[in-house]
Amino acid sequence: MEKEGKTKSLAQIAADDIIKLIKDNNMEPGQRLENEYELAKRLNVGRGTIREAIRSLVSRNILEVRRGAGTFVSYKNGIPEDPLGLAFEGSDESLALDMMDVRLMLEPEIAALACVNATKEQIKNMMNVCDKVEKLIKENKPYRQEDALFHQMVAECSGNTVVKKLIPVITSSVQLNIGVTRDRYKDDTIIQHRNIAEAIVERDIYKAKYSMITHLNILRNGILENK
Amino acid sequence: MEKEGKTKSLAQIAADDIIKLIKDNNMEPGQRLENEYELAKRLNVGRGTIREAIRSLVSRNILEVRRGAGTFVSYKNGIPEDPLGLAFEGSDESLALDMMDVRLMLEPEIAALACVNATKEQIKNMMNVCDKVEKLIKENKPYRQEDALFHQMVAECSGNTVVKKLIPVITSSVQLNIGVTRDRYKDDTIIQHRNIAEAIVERDIYKAKYSMITHLNILRNGILENK
Repeated sequence: MEKEGKTKSLAQIAADDIIKLIKDNNMEPGQRLENEYELAKRLNVGRGTIREAIRSLVSRNILEVRRGAGTFVSYKNGIPEDPLGLAFEGSDESLALDMMDVRLMLEPEIAALACVNATKEQIKNMMNVCDKVEKLIKENKPYRQEDALFHQMVAECSGNTVVKKLIPVITSSVQLNIGVTRDRYKDDTIIQHRNIAEAIVERDIYKAKYSMITHLNILRNGILENK
Repeated sequence: MEKEGKTKSLAQIAADDIIKLIKDNNMEPGQRLENEYELAKRLNVGRGTIREAIRSLVSRNILEVRRGAGTFVSYKNGIPEDPLGLAFEGSDESLALDMMDVRLMLEPEIAALACVNATKEQIKNMMNVCDKVEKLIKENKPYRQEDALFHQMVAECSGNTVVKKLIPVITSSVQLNIGVTRDRYKDDTIIQHRNIAEAIVERDIYKAKYSMITHLNILRNGILENK
């Protein structure tokens, strides 16, 4: 909203141009940009403007600067720290419950959508992560990161770009804010992840949806018990 | 995830301390912080560290610096620009549809939740905004901002903190990315907003939910026709 009517500074325009450059050239995270001098020449602005534009893109997690090596497309994909601005919000336990309720609004629908839209390639990737989570749990190793990745893979399968961006925001906010132990839910996690994955393979939207509800509701009950 | 195991710099610790200071003192947007010298003394760190901490909090939209006047709690409430990192994503039209699908996953449930949790004060605020949108539409004035505010008010009524943070993220991303005209939906907007508001007053969760679905689906059909 606030954007409407505001005039942009030279550095903001240059920042937009750099984003366009990255998009147009399909640059991937980790790829190096031209140096300041070349960018300034290409975008027809001063080097001070380029430096300011780069600084703002770094703070937006779109670029990263490695000293002596140059400026690179960031692996953070432009997703900011604390994207929901939860830094000021209440207790961790009540936030965890609110977050789980949001996941319960979104993820069952996402799983259903995945049954319709998943490509073979996406299904293969999801299956690999599903196997990996199971292996880690059985070996009694930490599996949180891969668990989050599984949910991310289901979101990728949905084919909805916004969902794809939203799920890591939600899972990262959860991990930022809570330390609810999931150790009690290891066996359930294996079973429900497997059910969700199978449902997507079988294009069975109700199996996908209700398996996701079952999975998340078990975790939700865990949060309620810890409160 | 990435946070785990990383050691924080002095400036990051100072930034966390400043956030804690704001929370503990219930400071509101627009309130002025102590100056650098006082903050450095209070947090027992150097002024260079404080300056770096403030810079990082400014880039996170938690603080704002007004030259000559001091450092203030930002009205942006720590919500970043482009919080979903959509800068790199596809065409505006397909993003608009994906965003609407996410709204359809969330907002009907939020409206239902509002029927259970809304306080009298929240209902009053929502009603005021509902009246304002209607007035603006009837006077043929721009009403986008107040329209978004109405949805924000319903989210406030839900009592879910994450939802409250998520809705402005979604509505601001939409406005960032699309210019789908809503002029054709003015009369529908008046009717459906009114239905949603009434449902929350009457604590009728199905009226709330299905009125929200009707409202958003009309807008969704508009996007489909524009594609």
